[in-house]
Amino acid sequence: MTNYYGSQVSRLIEEFAKLPGVGAKSAQRMAFYVLKSPQERAEALSSAILSARSTAKYCKFCQNLTDEEVCFVCNNHNRDPQTVMVVETPQDMAAYEKTREYSGLYHVLHGAISPMDGIGPGELRIKELLHRLDNNPPITEVILATNPNIEGEATAMYLSKLLKPLGVRTTRIAHGVPVGGDLEHVDSVTLLRALQGRREL
Amino acid sequence: MTNYYGSQVSRLIEEFAKLPGVGAKSAQRMAFYVLKSPQERAEALSSAILSARSTAKYCKFCQNLTDEEVCFVCNNHNRDPQTVMVVETPQDMAAYEKTREYSGLYHVLHGAISPMDGIGPGELRIKELLHRLDNNPPITEVILATNPNIEGEATAMYLSKLLKPLGVRTTRIAHGVPVGGDLEHVDSVTLLRALQGRREL
Repeated sequence: MTNYYGSQVSRLIEEFAKLPGVGAKSAQRMAFYVLKSPQERAEALSSAILSARSTAKYCKFCQNLTDEEVCFVCNNHNRDPQTVMVVETPQDMAAYEKTREYSGLYHVLHGAISPMDGIGPGELRIKELLHRLDNNPPITEVILATNPNIEGEATAMYLSKLLKPLGVRTTRIAHGVPVGGDLEHVDSVTLLRALQGRREL
Repeated sequence: MTNYYGSQVSRLIEEFAKLPGVGAKSAQRMAFYVLKSPQERAEALSSAILSARSTAKYCKFCQNLTDEEVCFVCNNHNRDPQTVMVVETPQDMAAYEKTREYSGLYHVLHGAISPMDGIGPGELRIKELLHRLDNNPPITEVILATNPNIEGEATAMYLSKLLKPLGVRTTRIAHGVPVGGDLEHVDSVTLLRALQGRREL
């Protein structure tokens, strides 16, 4: 890249361009925004990066991201400690929290089994999930809410084979047509799963 | 925003979301990227923000962004010092540099006249342009390369009225159909300008 704006500005553009989903043009726009905004704004962004990077840790129970030892869900004694929903990422956990209907706990795997990307069961927080089965009161149901794609399905299969012999009820979230969607635009595998999963009204 | 990931991570997401073109989802993705990447990566981004913000200054001649007193174009003695192209932003200057065909100097206005946004001629680097007309050797041509939109045209008109009485040749870049485009998808004002600007072959 030719250095049109001086080396420090070019370096900032390059750093922004390393972020996911940020191309050369967006990185440039972000850099010019930083240059034009007051010094305090630049300092706020800069320090937020460092402090989040250094203080964020994983909840010692569910592996969710948190500033504390224990995350806000595990810390909430009104939640049902006998039900655990297994998700791939903290974002998936947040998505279920936004429904405001789930009152159990979570377990964040931080990924899914993907041999193509070199991610096996050992790379996921599965050991930590197994440890939680020794809890008192015992966990009575593990809901597998990994993504409805190849990696997520493989992970759900793997976990169900691991958990069932231990006598824990293991369930999988339903596949079907999304609410508000148009049947016309739903792929045929989903349509088939919706048919197979039909329920009496 | 509910604080699902702890306050430091939420703060980082909020800071990223303030950048132009970054929505809530992208900000979250960027924050998680920072959290997962090595500490050095986070430090590199953090320090690039601060050092660009503190070292970037404007070239004392053309007002382009630079780390030095004088930018790389004004510092290049192989360039024609008698021709100055006026652009709105450093990005526009970089766009013309990429053509590798322009060998004159630039002048960056840092904006365009826009009464709607409260930007008058006083907010632009016009005084600095007028100062340059006293240069030796004298500037013989000023090429107005502001954007082909209402603000850019108004700025070009304003500058030509200011410069012509001073005896400087003042030109405007051509309007016409973009190279490689499809006539079918070009707006009618552009088609008309292309017709008006037609040249003998």
